[in-house]
Amino acid sequence: MKPFIYLDHAATSWPKPPEVLQAMQKAMEEAAANPGRGSHQMAVKASRVLFEGRKALSQLFQVRNQNDIIFTYNTTEALNLAIKGLLQPGDRVVATMVEHNSVRRPLEYLKRVAGVQVDYIPVNGQGQLDMARLKAALEQRPKLVVSTHSSNLLGSLLPIAEIGELARRYGAVFLVDAAQSAGCLEIDVSAMNIDLLAFPGHKGLLGPQGTGGLYISPTVELEPLLHGGTGSQSEEKEQPTIRPDRYEAGTPNTPGIAGLKAGVDQVLKLTPRRIYEHEWELTQRIMEGLQSIAEIRILGPEAGQPRTGIVSFVSTERDSSEIAFKLDREYGIAVRAGMHCTPLAHEAVDTLQTGAVRISVGVNTTREEADAAIDAVREICSKLS
Amino acid sequence: MKPFIYLDHAATSWPKPPEVLQAMQKAMEEAAANPGRGSHQMAVKASRVLFEGRKALSQLFQVRNQNDIIFTYNTTEALNLAIKGLLQPGDRVVATMVEHNSVRRPLEYLKRVAGVQVDYIPVNGQGQLDMARLKAALEQRPKLVVSTHSSNLLGSLLPIAEIGELARRYGAVFLVDAAQSAGCLEIDVSAMNIDLLAFPGHKGLLGPQGTGGLYISPTVELEPLLHGGTGSQSEEKEQPTIRPDRYEAGTPNTPGIAGLKAGVDQVLKLTPRRIYEHEWELTQRIMEGLQSIAEIRILGPEAGQPRTGIVSFVSTERDSSEIAFKLDREYGIAVRAGMHCTPLAHEAVDTLQTGAVRISVGVNTTREEADAAIDAVREICSKLS
Repeated sequence: MKPFIYLDHAATSWPKPPEVLQAMQKAMEEAAANPGRGSHQMAVKASRVLFEGRKALSQLFQVRNQNDIIFTYNTTEALNLAIKGLLQPGDRVVATMVEHNSVRRPLEYLKRVAGVQVDYIPVNGQGQLDMARLKAALEQRPKLVVSTHSSNLLGSLLPIAEIGELARRYGAVFLVDAAQSAGCLEIDVSAMNIDLLAFPGHKGLLGPQGTGGLYISPTVELEPLLHGGTGSQSEEKEQPTIRPDRYEAGTPNTPGIAGLKAGVDQVLKLTPRRIYEHEWELTQRIMEGLQSIAEIRILGPEAGQPRTGIVSFVSTERDSSEIAFKLDREYGIAVRAGMHCTPLAHEAVDTLQTGAVRISVGVNTTREEADAAIDAVREICSKLS
Repeated sequence: MKPFIYLDHAATSWPKPPEVLQAMQKAMEEAAANPGRGSHQMAVKASRVLFEGRKALSQLFQVRNQNDIIFTYNTTEALNLAIKGLLQPGDRVVATMVEHNSVRRPLEYLKRVAGVQVDYIPVNGQGQLDMARLKAALEQRPKLVVSTHSSNLLGSLLPIAEIGELARRYGAVFLVDAAQSAGCLEIDVSAMNIDLLAFPGHKGLLGPQGTGGLYISPTVELEPLLHGGTGSQSEEKEQPTIRPDRYEAGTPNTPGIAGLKAGVDQVLKLTPRRIYEHEWELTQRIMEGLQSIAEIRILGPEAGQPRTGIVSFVSTERDSSEIAFKLDREYGIAVRAGMHCTPLAHEAVDTLQTGAVRISVGVNTTREEADAAIDAVREICSKLS
């Protein structure tokens, strides 16, 4: 059997720590009842799973009240809840050109149906935000500022603390998309003035797919995205006002959240700082290796600069999909190619026509795996296309 | 250790077939990448998991094109997608008094923000719909008719095929909430004129929590509830129009869907008809046992009449929560008490003040377990309260 090297961690981290699978199995066997809907033992156990998940996430993001953590299906649902739950017709929004479609498409939808106005602040070729343009846009008094913490194409970091301070100064609500940063960058919602933080469970937090969440500051009120049963105040026509019930209608994913909690525990043990350092060292190694291949152009921050575990590149000689396809079929190396659900970022680095190959490393990626990827790309590029 | 008897299947079925846990574990180990977003082997495996899940569900519900099956977090999300995705300001809707809050609250929300008008058709004390009132309401030409297939409080069945025929005749879209029927009642979306079918993964389909879905007829177009990345047409500002991508933004719950598929396979093997017969026999046994306890009033259809695996009751002498609490603590029997997220149904059977105790059986419930529950209720009721 061919070796299998997984370098698509920016999509979903894999393999999960064994604790994650064990926690899910335990929840399926012992706590798979409906939390908050019954007083029987198994329902109480299920409530406990959710409570402990919220507590672990609160510790990671420095959230004071764990009931301000809302569980969702994925980051996309968290972002839709934040954006659609906050904005009213005619509101103004500031976002960046490196937002994922999970931010851009809800905004474009509200532009179409509710006349919401959106400014996308440009980034340079390294994925760095134009702060002067951001300040100018803030003068228009937007209701909401949205920024990703790290570009899913470029790996560049956005200065969240600085943007948060500006948003606060101009009275805007600040929403951060932590899809690429939760688990590998330190996030402190109060120190960074973050009002809304959307995060995935299945990437840097090492949990299973089907999990994610939204931190909602106690000062922000959103219209729920889902209306329905919560087990509380069930005689009322309206959603209850208490959290987390208000924003979590229907049966939650108890086994998934048990797995997520186990993943977050691993992150807390390793610490985001050490995970970042490990991944950064690997990206630098990969960049150094790829730089020696003439036809390759690496996207995003220069060597030595901060970046999350992502190295995207294009070749002047061959198609991105061809490289990814060969990496998979001939070398057993899983990466992602093509468009990465972030068209304005592709525009910023002039890869809207070509797409890009994205190598992304994770907490368990080794130097040997990084080297194998470099060697494979070099070999593929040494052949006539 | 006290024996543990689980009689809360109408909330979540438990325990799951071992095949469900195995399928989830296998997906976590082998297919936990992002379906549709990469061409590498593991992403292809993940796509296959979703494809097979859709195929099994299509077989169960007689759906022609499996891409008309959309996966969601739970039934509540499916119902929110159906209701909010279809209705426009000022539209008229016909629903029933036995709808769950997952139908009623989205409707009340649209009443408040978009002037949607809603008629709730009454049911009698046995949970049977007033068909004359339904026909009168249809004369008002509603855009949407919503009906649950079976009341989550009363266990009564609604005549879905008949309602579907009427809805079709009057040109209304027909949405069925199959929360209590998927897996134990036969559902044929074309024969029953069902345009939209919302179903849970974690109840009668024997899958894990965190799964559910919506069948959307090819003749119905909905505005998506979630806007975001789908891996397809990623350069567009709008959601792609192709299904299922249009309605499934963000990373799906691949391991959960693998488990759901394994659960549906069990249902297909046992057949909904045999599951219904098994559960019906048990509800009749429980009703017969409880009828001999003077202070107990059983809600819903009379003995001998059709009902899903639910027997709810109230006592003239003691509180519903007290009975449920004692069943749990003293007898190790898990049932649900209180309000059941369906206030109008409580109103119809005059239990809005008292709530009710709900015993609900499942595919693996035994006669001995049913008898133990009857004996326990009898013992609790024989004591001075």
